[in-house]
Amino acid sequence: MSKIENVTYDEIEIGRKVSYNKTLSEEDLILFAKVCGDVNPVHLDAEFAKTSMFGERIAHGMYTGSLISAVLGVLLPGPGTIYLGQTLRFSAPVKIGDTLTVIMEVIQKRDDKKFVTMDCVVENQHGKKVASGVAEVIAPTEKIIVDQPVLPPIMIG
Amino acid sequence: MSKIENVTYDEIEIGRKVSYNKTLSEEDLILFAKVCGDVNPVHLDAEFAKTSMFGERIAHGMYTGSLISAVLGVLLPGPGTIYLGQTLRFSAPVKIGDTLTVIMEVIQKRDDKKFVTMDCVVENQHGKKVASGVAEVIAPTEKIIVDQPVLPPIMIG
Repeated sequence: MSKIENVTYDEIEIGRKVSYNKTLSEEDLILFAKVCGDVNPVHLDAEFAKTSMFGERIAHGMYTGSLISAVLGVLLPGPGTIYLGQTLRFSAPVKIGDTLTVIMEVIQKRDDKKFVTMDCVVENQHGKKVASGVAEVIAPTEKIIVDQPVLPPIMIG
Repeated sequence: MSKIENVTYDEIEIGRKVSYNKTLSEEDLILFAKVCGDVNPVHLDAEFAKTSMFGERIAHGMYTGSLISAVLGVLLPGPGTIYLGQTLRFSAPVKIGDTLTVIMEVIQKRDDKKFVTMDCVVENQHGKKVASGVAEVIAPTEKIIVDQPVLPPIMIG
């Protein structure tokens, strides 16, 4: 079984970078809509989306935001992290089949509170920035190495 | 079939409020983890979560963010909206069975660009604020009334 290992506050150095890739599928659009209730047809209805300024279905903006939170939850700092805040600017649409790369860099640490600030950029497969922002977390002080949860199978339709 | 009707820029007045409720289920945690890849065990592993500062599984922070985006996508302004940016502060954990209420209020309009700024507060069933922030969108200028997409059944496990 795979393990997840966190990066503690003391192990985190300013300038540390991490990246994470994910390709948007049609299923992701459906599952995201189900979870949050955002059934705006620009995400779900191919015919409607054709008539929109985007010309096809696009991802929910917060889908891209959720990839940033995935980096914080799994990669850096990982388990034990407390998410304090996030800013997000959405700069380009994300379409089915796009492969997004989330690039996060530690830009600030505050020792007394164990606060860590991270710059976040999300690019598509053409190198175009689709979102950016800043994340603030409290980093864990204790090392955690834990079994990676395995998700049950999910069937759509 | 249900319809979704947007609220155009001209129809939006400062001070307009809208709210939206959703109860967090265990399935939501699984689907959210699947969509974004955040398999941090504090969201998925009840035994691990018992050892965390929260004492039980909690929602992904961006789950709460996604409820804000659902309001923008479906209720106000709805179809035709372009999401520009979001700030979020997370102030309390969200647990399975919690019913969240998202309350959004129009606080600013900028006529030349059709920008609308909205204050966002998310509370749990005890009236405790779990998240807050500010959303910025471009509101649609044309009225859209469209069939609400129906999601296919989703089965877990």
